[in-house]
Amino acid sequence: MNTIRSHGTVGVHDHDGRSGRCGYGCSVEQLMDNPEYRAGVIDLLGALGVGELTAFQRLAADAELAPTLADQAALAGMAVAEFHHFERIRDHLAQLGASVDEAMAPFHEAYVTFHANTAPSDWLEGLVKAYVGDQIATDFYREIAVAVDDDTRALVTEVLADAGHADFVIDRVRSAIDEDPSVAGRLALWGRRLVGEALAQAQRVAADRDALAAIFVGGEGRPGMDLAELGRVFARLTENHAKRMATLGLAA
Amino acid sequence: MNTIRSHGTVGVHDHDGRSGRCGYGCSVEQLMDNPEYRAGVIDLLGALGVGELTAFQRLAADAELAPTLADQAALAGMAVAEFHHFERIRDHLAQLGASVDEAMAPFHEAYVTFHANTAPSDWLEGLVKAYVGDQIATDFYREIAVAVDDDTRALVTEVLADAGHADFVIDRVRSAIDEDPSVAGRLALWGRRLVGEALAQAQRVAADRDALAAIFVGGEGRPGMDLAELGRVFARLTENHAKRMATLGLAA
Repeated sequence: MNTIRSHGTVGVHDHDGRSGRCGYGCSVEQLMDNPEYRAGVIDLLGALGVGELTAFQRLAADAELAPTLADQAALAGMAVAEFHHFERIRDHLAQLGASVDEAMAPFHEAYVTFHANTAPSDWLEGLVKAYVGDQIATDFYREIAVAVDDDTRALVTEVLADAGHADFVIDRVRSAIDEDPSVAGRLALWGRRLVGEALAQAQRVAADRDALAAIFVGGEGRPGMDLAELGRVFARLTENHAKRMATLGLAA
Repeated sequence: MNTIRSHGTVGVHDHDGRSGRCGYGCSVEQLMDNPEYRAGVIDLLGALGVGELTAFQRLAADAELAPTLADQAALAGMAVAEFHHFERIRDHLAQLGASVDEAMAPFHEAYVTFHANTAPSDWLEGLVKAYVGDQIATDFYREIAVAVDDDTRALVTEVLADAGHADFVIDRVRSAIDEDPSVAGRLALWGRRLVGEALAQAQRVAADRDALAAIFVGGEGRPGMDLAELGRVFARLTENHAKRMATLGLAA
């Protein structure tokens, strides 16, 4: 973990994002009183919420590719876990007095485009996507969450917790490669496409949504994450992706 | 409630299905020791389980027809409730030492056919199907559950409990009719199609699966529900359907 001066966006003074309180003792309530900070948190939760809801929709649809009803149920269970995460975010947004629809709408198209561009053509591609796609999103939102207050970060961390489904995917994909090593090349390419599409959509969202970007990289004329740190974030995202692909028995 | 001599299929003596114990004091364990009775219960749970799983899949898919993300989330929530019911049945089948895949497989095609023949063309049809389809299935399985032991019936009743989503559908459909009364005719036809397809698939399953049918109507040479009683069951199913259509503001 590293200290990021991202609450420069509050426009008063710099914050240590990890503690959720600045050096001057601002509380979460005080942070939320700042419209720019509040908008950033609502953007973050809106993006995460619609991500969970669309992940639910896609995993549920991909479950129909399963070779057996038990496998179908396993992927459906991953979909349901995403839906319960969505519910937690929806409830938190409601507590903040935000319209859930309005908070999520700006990010809907990016997720719809991501899923349209990464529709799996078979069960194995669906499994790899369920694992790799979910984990890239997890890494990405955890990096952002470093820069927010304790309450928001606790929620983000909670909804990103692995629901224990990774082992199911790893087991199935490794078994499939053992049975037919030729699938590894195709799935490795698939993994690269997933991460490429995910980063493309993340960049698009960051470019469109100033309030969300401000949490991460600072607002206009105010200090935020510097370029070197931003580079390290992307390095971590791609390193973690490579590790996961290796766990699946695939080249990154 | 009425006493049904459907455990004549146990091949020993008649039972009062409601108590789960026959007049001679057979316990649930003793009933389950009878292969024909056990096969019937596994069939019942298999049919119900794959019904819940396919309902999950279809409701999740239909949720994407929603006009807003909040509405999408509401229908997705109904899908998730079905999935949790499926989980309860899966766990119970596992406790009985039955293969969940094998228990569900014989009924899969009937549900797939039902859903293929009743794919909603818009959000309102999806809502009516979510409510009417779910409730027809509930009535049907409750009628069967009268004839099984306490443990099985408690599970069936639990997974068929309304998760409180009916109000959402009723509210949306009535509002839509208020706004544009012309939709009522189309949705009334749609409701008739739903009940027709449901009964067609139920008849097909009953014809194919002796063990399940035996729970309901008795086995070969053994007393079960008589034709008059069977007629009353169908009368109740269609009466309840008509009441629900009226609740939605639709002709049955």
